[in-house]
Amino acid sequence: MKVNGEDYRAIWWEGDAVGFIDQRLLPHRFESSSATTLSQVADAISGMAIRGAPTIGVMAAYGLALAARIGEQIDDAYSLLVGTRPTAINLKVGLDAVMAAAPDTGAMLAAARTHDESEVAAARAIGVHGLDLLEHGSRVLTHCNAGWMAAQDWGTATSPVYTAAREGLNPFVWVSETRPRLQGARITAWEMLNEGIDHRLIADGAGAQLMRQGRVDVVITGADRIAANGDTANKIGTYSHALAAHANGVPFYIAAPLTTFDSRTPHGDAIPIEERDENEVRTLEGLTEDGELKRVAITPPGTQVINPAFDVTPASLITGFITEVGVIPATPEAIMSALKLP
Amino acid sequence: MKVNGEDYRAIWWEGDAVGFIDQRLLPHRFESSSATTLSQVADAISGMAIRGAPTIGVMAAYGLALAARIGEQIDDAYSLLVGTRPTAINLKVGLDAVMAAAPDTGAMLAAARTHDESEVAAARAIGVHGLDLLEHGSRVLTHCNAGWMAAQDWGTATSPVYTAAREGLNPFVWVSETRPRLQGARITAWEMLNEGIDHRLIADGAGAQLMRQGRVDVVITGADRIAANGDTANKIGTYSHALAAHANGVPFYIAAPLTTFDSRTPHGDAIPIEERDENEVRTLEGLTEDGELKRVAITPPGTQVINPAFDVTPASLITGFITEVGVIPATPEAIMSALKLP
Repeated sequence: MKVNGEDYRAIWWEGDAVGFIDQRLLPHRFESSSATTLSQVADAISGMAIRGAPTIGVMAAYGLALAARIGEQIDDAYSLLVGTRPTAINLKVGLDAVMAAAPDTGAMLAAARTHDESEVAAARAIGVHGLDLLEHGSRVLTHCNAGWMAAQDWGTATSPVYTAAREGLNPFVWVSETRPRLQGARITAWEMLNEGIDHRLIADGAGAQLMRQGRVDVVITGADRIAANGDTANKIGTYSHALAAHANGVPFYIAAPLTTFDSRTPHGDAIPIEERDENEVRTLEGLTEDGELKRVAITPPGTQVINPAFDVTPASLITGFITEVGVIPATPEAIMSALKLP
Repeated sequence: MKVNGEDYRAIWWEGDAVGFIDQRLLPHRFESSSATTLSQVADAISGMAIRGAPTIGVMAAYGLALAARIGEQIDDAYSLLVGTRPTAINLKVGLDAVMAAAPDTGAMLAAARTHDESEVAAARAIGVHGLDLLEHGSRVLTHCNAGWMAAQDWGTATSPVYTAAREGLNPFVWVSETRPRLQGARITAWEMLNEGIDHRLIADGAGAQLMRQGRVDVVITGADRIAANGDTANKIGTYSHALAAHANGVPFYIAAPLTTFDSRTPHGDAIPIEERDENEVRTLEGLTEDGELKRVAITPPGTQVINPAFDVTPASLITGFITEVGVIPATPEAIMSALKLP
């Protein structure tokens, strides 16, 4: 997507380095950085300089290709990278695609590029299929960031919105701020502003009320892993929005490429859920009046926290999945058929 | 309740002034302040230096008594104070109790004191009745702060918990942080720490997942206004927790004194919902490493926000009301009977 007139993706290959936009600095600063070592790639993923399931997969793919080119032991590099985040299955898919070409470093880089382009094409196609679900002026509620920062280009949940905007349909987006890391307030709000999409930011707890008041036409979020039965892991807070949508007759869609589906995970309770650092809830970073990025504590010192990064939305609450092969229902049969599995 | 060995209430009369703990500074500083003019009382309420429906009512009651004593026109003072916050009906109840004694300033102050003591007695009784709903080690989820800061002493939602702790039942509390103003993270977490109650802080969006995982035994929140049919306005985010409780078979109780019931409001959609400043969502205040209180921006500059302070939970999702006259079902008949109305 364009930023200040220039084309960007969330991450890119730049000659024995992986370039990326440091998403931790958004919305305050739009800065790119680059990883030239295996540990820099691993840190960018685990430290969430880049995040979003498809982007994580592409970063890991380029990272493994980079590791091979700079002489790291390939199996060790794979093991390190696959352990950087536990929930997004795209991480493993990206790594496996590159591993299949090992040990030929040229072929490994080519495989990473192919994986990258295929995720971008999937994101684009999600927008085309998702467009069928939107009308003129549709009010879409989304949670976290499943925008182009999370999926290289176009995004998953945002792709139908960006497509609708280009078709002149004037979509409107409710941006759920997404505590604790505020990817909605920081990244999705920034993306909407950058693309000129009309939007309003809300606290996560306000989504249900808006649905009860009939002010939301459709909920669309991304996913980090979709189990074989359709249960879906996504950013913590997604399940609450799904319950509110269900209770108020609002359609609830998950937008995700087929790389996010994991036929080997039978149901949601089998998806590993990452627990992140307590300080993500205890403290927050923002810009002071003087333009300084500062971290501030919002709780009593040492308050104990439970900080699951994801939750599981049962398939029964999901109206459908918006994928690159079309919109499919949240049933095991439809999922197996989309994945071309017997 | 005791703080550093001394007895406190959220607010108190101190000889032609209303003393109060400035809750905006919690948990970083425990500081009291005092209002000596009508406008200082009004600002303390509208600026949320004090908050919580019963505490708002007591502050307004003392504020009106103060206004009369310092020679303000009583009707004007009533009008100013009744408009400081639109949702909590306790505000009007407290003012009406004092107004009934006008223009005798001594009688007005006595009426404010009586209202104060009666709210404290109600909070205490809520704890005794609510104790029946808890077992040894019960895990209670609460939202916002319905603790003693919100209800002068004991609190409403917290009163059963404090009572259980004194009975040796070792209650555990999930503290939902409560964006945007973080009354859970700031005030309830501070209260739990101060009372030595085992607790964990969570992002608001994590509550539903904990309920799905069977890690919550009961949800108890306060209320700002309860309509005649049982629909309840409380802090934004309450409705989401109620939906999650309902979907997962977790009992959901509202703890509130009878002053929070409004028989003249027929149902939830008739309750006025306060919209607060957009900056409450765009910015956050916390303590820097250097011990300075700083406000930081978390969104792109000028991001537009919708910031409703409350939501409405339909009576159908409420297991019961914990009141000073016992635990009653969320039905119009039970409410009218508790209020001794025909």
